[in-house]
Amino acid sequence: MAHIDLQNELPGIRGLMQFRPETARHLNELAEILLRNDDNSLARGERELIGAYVSSLNDCFFCQNVHGALAGHYLQCDMYQVDAIKNDFMSTAISEKMKSLLSIAGAVQQGGQKVSAEQVSYAKSVGATDREIHDTVLIAAAFCMFNRYVDGLGTWAPEDRQFYINRAPQRAAEGYIDFDLNK
Amino acid sequence: MAHIDLQNELPGIRGLMQFRPETARHLNELAEILLRNDDNSLARGERELIGAYVSSLNDCFFCQNVHGALAGHYLQCDMYQVDAIKNDFMSTAISEKMKSLLSIAGAVQQGGQKVSAEQVSYAKSVGATDREIHDTVLIAAAFCMFNRYVDGLGTWAPEDRQFYINRAPQRAAEGYIDFDLNK
Repeated sequence: MAHIDLQNELPGIRGLMQFRPETARHLNELAEILLRNDDNSLARGERELIGAYVSSLNDCFFCQNVHGALAGHYLQCDMYQVDAIKNDFMSTAISEKMKSLLSIAGAVQQGGQKVSAEQVSYAKSVGATDREIHDTVLIAAAFCMFNRYVDGLGTWAPEDRQFYINRAPQRAAEGYIDFDLNK
Repeated sequence: MAHIDLQNELPGIRGLMQFRPETARHLNELAEILLRNDDNSLARGERELIGAYVSSLNDCFFCQNVHGALAGHYLQCDMYQVDAIKNDFMSTAISEKMKSLLSIAGAVQQGGQKVSAEQVSYAKSVGATDREIHDTVLIAAAFCMFNRYVDGLGTWAPEDRQFYINRAPQRAAEGYIDFDLNK
């Protein structure tokens, strides 16, 4: 049960968004520009993967499954492959650039000052642009917000991971703005 | 020097906002609704204080001084009084409700799951509403984002704290949207 009376039974961040639509609007617009807008050289799946990875480091069950399922949807891989990346991305077959960005995201999760000049220069040496590094840091930072919002208010989350996998195609198609919270 | 070439010399989050205005817009709208919008039973100064406190826990020099100065401006107290609250709010003369909300904000900074049912029920017992608790959690979570964004990209910050105090009245008057980044 959530820490406050949300006056609805929706899970995770959706219950919070129905409770306080004035803040929800801007949170959703931020998610849309960061994760889904097509003016970005990082693929949607790569950006969702950064969000899922940071959410797993923050141990946020709802967010890591929502965004893990979306990453799997976009990258056309299953939840086991997404789990393998979340658990130990260095030993997976993702690109060296993606590994360097996940490494930066992991540092952001610990704290902004944990990001080292060496991590950033390595990312640049394997092809990451300044804007990709910027967006990686901001996506990781944003998930440190979303995760704390969802868990800090004690929201509930469906336990069956298939729930998130089933919803991912619809969420991918609709995006983060103007979707129906109840669906 | 920032980790990436921001193509401007602006300090803190302002340099990042000039670099990537598409994301800046939504970050500023979020700050405006959370910290400055008048449809809120928490005073502007109380909300800025939550942001300054979380920024101090995250050791973000730029944010804790920008928002500490704004808290001081709104609450009509000086930086020493704001520092005393950041350092040990329990021993200051702020209200019991504000103490209970800062306690929740401090838990959010550690991680969403650190917020306890006891903390929330105590906050309610001293007069905090569900929406005040919601906003406290979201403000604290949002500063965990802003702080990581500012420090994760290695931005610079003016060292003289008087700089932040001098700017606070103008920022308070202009708000977070449509202000001139260069002023």
